[in-house]
Amino acid sequence: MDMNKKTIIVFSGDLDKAMASLIIANGAAAMGNEVTMFFTFWGLNVLRKPDKVKIKKSFLEALFGWMMPRGAGRLGLSKMNFGGMGASMMRTIMKQKNVSDVQELIETAQSLGVKLIACSMSMDVMGIRAEELIDGVEFAGVATYLGEADEANVNLFI
Amino acid sequence: MDMNKKTIIVFSGDLDKAMASLIIANGAAAMGNEVTMFFTFWGLNVLRKPDKVKIKKSFLEALFGWMMPRGAGRLGLSKMNFGGMGASMMRTIMKQKNVSDVQELIETAQSLGVKLIACSMSMDVMGIRAEELIDGVEFAGVATYLGEADEANVNLFI
Amino acid sequence: MDMNKKTIIVFSGDLDKAMASLIIANGAAAMGNEVTMFFTFWGLNVLRKPDKVKIKKSFLEALFGWMMPRGAGRLGLSKMNFGGMGASMMRTIMKQKNVSDVQELIETAQSLGVKLIACSMSMDVMGIRAEELIDGVEFAGVATYLGEADEANVNLFI
Repeated sequence: MDMNKKTIIVFSGDLDKAMASLIIANGAAAMGNEVTMFFTFWGLNVLRKPDKVKIKKSFLEALFGWMMPRGAGRLGLSKMNFGGMGASMMRTIMKQKNVSDVQELIETAQSLGVKLIACSMSMDVMGIRAEELIDGVEFAGVATYLGEADEANVNLFI
Repeated sequence: MDMNKKTIIVFSGDLDKAMASLIIANGAAAMGNEVTMFFTFWGLNVLRKPDKVKIKKSFLEALFGWMMPRGAGRLGLSKMNFGGMGASMMRTIMKQKNVSDVQELIETAQSLGVKLIACSMSMDVMGIRAEELIDGVEFAGVATYLGEADEANVNLFI
Repeated sequence: MDMNKKTIIVFSGDLDKAMASLIIANGAAAMGNEVTMFFTFWGLNVLRKPDKVKIKKSFLEALFGWMMPRGAGRLGLSKMNFGGMGASMMRTIMKQKNVSDVQELIETAQSLGVKLIACSMSMDVMGIRAEELIDGVEFAGVATYLGEADEANVNLFI
């Protein structure tokens, strides 16, 4: 086991949980850890590009894609979201306090070498294509996650 | 510490989180791991039999039991459930993509030797009796969980 | 790595998840483990004093503070809360079954030597001041958490 490895499964697509996962990941990477973030289910929305990508989808895939937030800038809060008002309040406060937003946290993660993996099975189920996700993301399944987790000393599910 | 042991606490009774936990558990078991899933609180609903079991309960116990989903086939989504419509959409998509549903994932887990433990304290609080849960489930408390977690190298709370 | 160390991040401020995290923490402490609980985001509400503390806050900070539950006695359920009715039902059942409530679980945790840490960055974002939290809580950031997690053999995010 490598004392310098951490993995985080990002299942949630909520602004607050995405922030928490990236703050832990970036903190660990800054302290010299090898960090893998595995984005699955709603967590995939954290990695979506903000602009609409033209892709042929089935009706249900298109409906899912349309209902889910496109990228880090549109995520809602897990509590007290009130149709996005809570998330706006949170973003305003974070700007006032000079706390990085999720887009900035993702850029920092990438510059620190945090590995961002999108779960290929969830992408299939949710009808999200590789072209819809930000650059630099890798694609893999549960076996890859388990291989990484076996070598890590901290494994979180968020 | 045994490199081949994993534990997962399934606290959530949501369709999507139940799927995620079982996919990880089954993946780990298929790769030769000893896996223990510890179902607690809402997670107990994942293990409920689909059919009503006649049991004498207090009023509050009966109310809880009536409001909570009976088994894997009735779970809702953690997000965008819209009174079950989201969960139906998800089930339809999964069928289209040939992804196993939760009942099938549980059967696979059992055939792979994944240990399914129902938290006895939660059962007491929520008024769920052993007869209401599917066959092959064991019953234990937090000390058993901690004993297993101490021997595992990946421990998740879902 | 120390076989006798556990960490739990308490991100959630829900009654049911707070209970689960404290039951695990107290169980581990009673079995001789060194346990650190790191309360962040909504989890900070678990540590708030029940009485209002007079503090000058910005408008958004005051609004957040007013909307969030003040302390363990006012937490809601993560599911089926129905404006607090679900949480009341749960508290009634717990009393009937002689299960400790969250306040009692926190007292037990403190008497067992469980370290309760409030995340200083979340406190800043949510506008929660040290005086608003119960006595005996420590304050630290993500680096402290990661240092503790590195030495623990079970690390959960709840």
